[in-house]
Amino acid sequence: LGKNSAGVVLGPGDDCAVLSFPDSEEVCASTDTLIEGVHFPENCDASVVASRLVGANLSDLAAMGALPHSCLIALTMPEAEKNWLSEFSATLTDLLEKHGLALAGGNISKGSLSLTMTVLGTVPVGQALTRIGARPGDIVCVTGTLGDARKGLNDLLSGLESSKYLTSRYCRPTPRLEIGRQLRGLATAVIDISDGLIADLSHLCQASQVGALIELLSVPVSDDLVSILGDLEARSSGLTAGDDYELCFTLPAACSKELNSLAMSSGLPITQVGYIKTGSGVDVLDYEGNCLDVGESGYRHFS
Amino acid sequence: LGKNSAGVVLGPGDDCAVLSFPDSEEVCASTDTLIEGVHFPENCDASVVASRLVGANLSDLAAMGALPHSCLIALTMPEAEKNWLSEFSATLTDLLEKHGLALAGGNISKGSLSLTMTVLGTVPVGQALTRIGARPGDIVCVTGTLGDARKGLNDLLSGLESSKYLTSRYCRPTPRLEIGRQLRGLATAVIDISDGLIADLSHLCQASQVGALIELLSVPVSDDLVSILGDLEARSSGLTAGDDYELCFTLPAACSKELNSLAMSSGLPITQVGYIKTGSGVDVLDYEGNCLDVGESGYRHFS
Repeated sequence: LGKNSAGVVLGPGDDCAVLSFPDSEEVCASTDTLIEGVHFPENCDASVVASRLVGANLSDLAAMGALPHSCLIALTMPEAEKNWLSEFSATLTDLLEKHGLALAGGNISKGSLSLTMTVLGTVPVGQALTRIGARPGDIVCVTGTLGDARKGLNDLLSGLESSKYLTSRYCRPTPRLEIGRQLRGLATAVIDISDGLIADLSHLCQASQVGALIELLSVPVSDDLVSILGDLEARSSGLTAGDDYELCFTLPAACSKELNSLAMSSGLPITQVGYIKTGSGVDVLDYEGNCLDVGESGYRHFS
Repeated sequence: LGKNSAGVVLGPGDDCAVLSFPDSEEVCASTDTLIEGVHFPENCDASVVASRLVGANLSDLAAMGALPHSCLIALTMPEAEKNWLSEFSATLTDLLEKHGLALAGGNISKGSLSLTMTVLGTVPVGQALTRIGARPGDIVCVTGTLGDARKGLNDLLSGLESSKYLTSRYCRPTPRLEIGRQLRGLATAVIDISDGLIADLSHLCQASQVGALIELLSVPVSDDLVSILGDLEARSSGLTAGDDYELCFTLPAACSKELNSLAMSSGLPITQVGYIKTGSGVDVLDYEGNCLDVGESGYRHFS
């Protein structure tokens, strides 16, 4: 796994891996832990664990406009289960190859099942996208549709599979790496949606020292989610549900043309859900036009 | 913690940290997990956990001849215990400052106590020290003394503190970064001793496709350990006891002069314990001159 890839001078097996980065690039680094029973259900398929581990980490790179370089994985499990490891490795290998991500190092320990992955990516010097930079008047956009993964997870937990699409959105999240890369020089601030639109947009607003207003009826939702929950409940769920790993970003309203060509080239809907204003926190305009202040933390559940 | 350090363009708080590395350097990366009850005792002081976490990770950099750059820490704990976190942070801050290591990212999750640290270091292009390169006729050396940390841990577990020096060797391991750096261009292969001399030298031999012979009576042991265990048991323990985080390295016999000046400048004993030979595995010459084949795995306990 991951040996002899470009950028990896020395792969796993020594005290350290030795990595090489192009001179003109900076390195984006993030670490994420997934714990059984917290971040994925107990007895979850090993391939789902691998997909969510890689998806969550690569989504962090996507939100910086960075391209995948290499990763290190620390795996803790009660005992070395051959079948689990073989299924995990097969999915991991596929995903590493698909995304051009080299496995630079690993560590296996005995304990309750959890995985910590550290991912390294590259971005041209000075071009990393951050949460800082949104300005009043900027529009707020999101990629794809929201709320799918939460419903997919609920279906998995209840044993009811209402839609293969929804469960696949939870089980095999797609990091928006190409869109992230194309947002360089265009977006004023970017974050990935792992905790939910309101929560993550609140983080972006806090970092940029601005507020935001979003319209409930603009929240993009999938046909599958609407057909099960109805339009209003689907959009409400899209406000707070996490795990979709879509990108939320801001850009000047004058850039709507670039936005259209980005949506066209990616084949993914990009939807304006609101705009940035002075102040702080995220306000939501509901379907009757009432403004609901959901607070800076954004963790309050919408109903 | 760790913000605004050289090499860290953007610190913790965004989707990723953004790091900058000098053009002439390669990056060494390693990840290590410490689990309560496996890698450190239950109810262990938070400052000991921090010291061992940083010590173990920096020791991997030392074994590559790399200098500390930055790190990411994923902490999992049952609940946010304020006192524990405050003690952990205080020791961590001290150590990061002491070693010039920036905290680039972190992650906190709910679960049984464990910590995964990923460390990044720099080494001039092409100069990283690896486990590969030991040649028959090379001498095998170790830094410092062996067996101290194991006895220190046993004393902690039994509640008997026989020597403050020995417990401190377990609780506050010293990564041999400066010696590692000076071994560049001198050592033919290096590994750090975390699992015990025989085990780790076996790894080095396997990577270099050679064998080694070490003499029991050459194993360097501290006065404190000898005064408690006696000379022979102390040296035997030094063969297999882990956790000391000393370096084991090989170099041409003709380099003994450079070795002396290295020992002088570091103020740390550097001891020749044996030599590299053709074949495979690590043989031990005991105090009566008998050759004991302890196997390639090296994990067999010596008595």
